[in-house]
Amino acid sequence: MGSRVLFDPSSPVFRVHEGGKLAMRSKIALTDRESLSLAYTPGVAQVCSAIADEPELARRYTWRSRLVAVVSDGTAVLGLGNIGPAAALPVMEGKAALFREFAGLDSVPIVLDTTDADEIVHTVQAIAPSFGGINLEDISAPRCFDIEGRLRESLDIPVFHDDQHGTAVVVLAALRNAAAITDRSLGELRVVISGAGAAGVACAKILLAAGIGDIAVADSRGIVHSGRSDLTPVKAELASLTNRAGLAGSMADALAGADVFVGVSAGAVDEISVAQLAPKAIIFALANPTPEVAPDVAHRHAAVVATGRSDYPNQINNVLAFPGIFAGAFDAGARAITENMKLAAARALGEVVAGELAPDKIVPTPFDPRVAPAVAAAVAEQAVADGVAS
Amino acid sequence: MGSRVLFDPSSPVFRVHEGGKLAMRSKIALTDRESLSLAYTPGVAQVCSAIADEPELARRYTWRSRLVAVVSDGTAVLGLGNIGPAAALPVMEGKAALFREFAGLDSVPIVLDTTDADEIVHTVQAIAPSFGGINLEDISAPRCFDIEGRLRESLDIPVFHDDQHGTAVVVLAALRNAAAITDRSLGELRVVISGAGAAGVACAKILLAAGIGDIAVADSRGIVHSGRSDLTPVKAELASLTNRAGLAGSMADALAGADVFVGVSAGAVDEISVAQLAPKAIIFALANPTPEVAPDVAHRHAAVVATGRSDYPNQINNVLAFPGIFAGAFDAGARAITENMKLAAARALGEVVAGELAPDKIVPTPFDPRVAPAVAAAVAEQAVADGVAS
Repeated sequence: MGSRVLFDPSSPVFRVHEGGKLAMRSKIALTDRESLSLAYTPGVAQVCSAIADEPELARRYTWRSRLVAVVSDGTAVLGLGNIGPAAALPVMEGKAALFREFAGLDSVPIVLDTTDADEIVHTVQAIAPSFGGINLEDISAPRCFDIEGRLRESLDIPVFHDDQHGTAVVVLAALRNAAAITDRSLGELRVVISGAGAAGVACAKILLAAGIGDIAVADSRGIVHSGRSDLTPVKAELASLTNRAGLAGSMADALAGADVFVGVSAGAVDEISVAQLAPKAIIFALANPTPEVAPDVAHRHAAVVATGRSDYPNQINNVLAFPGIFAGAFDAGARAITENMKLAAARALGEVVAGELAPDKIVPTPFDPRVAPAVAAAVAEQAVADGVAS
Repeated sequence: MGSRVLFDPSSPVFRVHEGGKLAMRSKIALTDRESLSLAYTPGVAQVCSAIADEPELARRYTWRSRLVAVVSDGTAVLGLGNIGPAAALPVMEGKAALFREFAGLDSVPIVLDTTDADEIVHTVQAIAPSFGGINLEDISAPRCFDIEGRLRESLDIPVFHDDQHGTAVVVLAALRNAAAITDRSLGELRVVISGAGAAGVACAKILLAAGIGDIAVADSRGIVHSGRSDLTPVKAELASLTNRAGLAGSMADALAGADVFVGVSAGAVDEISVAQLAPKAIIFALANPTPEVAPDVAHRHAAVVATGRSDYPNQINNVLAFPGIFAGAFDAGARAITENMKLAAARALGEVVAGELAPDKIVPTPFDPRVAPAVAAAVAEQAVADGVAS
């Protein structure tokens, strides 16, 4: 998709990626007979036997309990689409690097030579004993919903599709703060979500769970409503959960009088439609690199504007969520990431900037060192409360 | 199997394994907007697009081309047997640490929640785009032969079952040097191999390929010969390839007059049988921790003795082979590890100590820094000669 990118090995981007972005290291120097006999044979047999007797000891004596698999089939990579596993690997390495740099977690990219949902599920089930958690990444909708659901059901470790829930957690945190600085509660807001893919579905669900009553979701064919005959099962479920007003028209129809626009698709929205938003409107135009509403246009019609870009204020970026969420789940030895844990993550993330709220400061920056520890603490606490901690 | 091991968290072994033995690191510090935009979005999209256009670039711009998956189902771990994936993980972490420490390669342990050969094959095929090579480990026979064969056939990256070929390469190197210091050629030796599992089968095959004409293999029921009705397909093949003398008795019968005993099973051999070996006998008693023939007994009846133990001279340990073999295969961009590459590895390994040969110095020690580079160079050169380099 898009124009062919010039491959320029001397450019900074390519230079940074030379040889890949990850390295494995041994925490033990194996330089003599003594160290080899402790860390490998014959010593390691004692550790294996102890774990065989007492499986819980695997958590203490292997790296798996703080190890994330970043799993992708390469079907929905950034704005590039279905580019396959080899071409997706640089993104997954980057994600693994983010786990390390932002939360101190070990992480391994696993890209898959299959796009079949059954095969993906069976493969991840088979390799699961190697890992403490599964971060699904850039798997296209609607397969991503089925795959995540089946893995959550069958595995006793955290499974998290970041394109859904990472985005949703940060959007909720940002929206709560945007509501606060415009003197409203979440329950008062009428929200329009543009996009019914992974992020759109998850945003709708978390906003409903957080108490927003009126949400309309639109895909490329207009508002998702139960009268449509072209809905996937996931969109049909969405139709039953959202759109209380019973809207049935286009995105423009949905925007008239709405308080919030959340763009999680590539579809641009024209200024005439944006101008129909209610006073004190909130616009999150998250498409990258080109937001659905240009920031200057958005500012003409909204009180609060956020994008996915690092060169504007209020960057809504998943990196605010996933490192802390996995760290908190691991801290608690959580067997799953519950809906409550996601809500707790959003609350904690928003509270990081509670004392410094402003229209251009509704979320912390990605490099705010308070973020991951705050999110992790809230998630771990909620894991205990939800009875999924070990 | 065996007695229950005392779990003592304060012992050196358990202290060394606390938290696991591996860590992942990011080669790029992601500390500001600039580094994040180069290593992750939006910059990474250029790298993904370039690889999508030109798949060969994955080798240069991801870590996979020098990354080994250490894959096990936990069915044949050390002397412990079938202890399952969780309990096998400490060994696989150790193996990954050895790849790093001895050859500078990145490596990830993958332990599997299945022992079904089809599922193992499909799982490894599915995750293969994440890795530059597959090291199969501690998978029980005879499934290991089938699994390795199907993966070698279907994947275009090196696949190597270390329990077979790592052992076989080191045994061949050691035997060639043992023959040299007893003034014989390989072709003159009559060899008895005790054990027809992964290591026994691979040793028999590599010794045949290296020119040893007369080999008898014995399993727990005696000499493998074509008249037996209890042979697996792999042992039936072995019967057709070995035992030219048509022996049909017990291990003791095979040993009478033989030049070499290679023990790769746990079955002890009594001194009366050992005493039947020919003059200038060579004994490799590789069972760990208890050699098939006690070293003092072996020395009474043999000119050269080797074991698998680090506290005796002539330690025959796979670590002399697998790090250099994978490094050489990666250096050459090899699509497979051919039989010739294994033979080249054995030759190069033996030559490392060619100038210092002695009855107690037929192989280098595991910490000899010449080993991995010498093996890697020979393997890479052979990959080119065999037409499997890229």
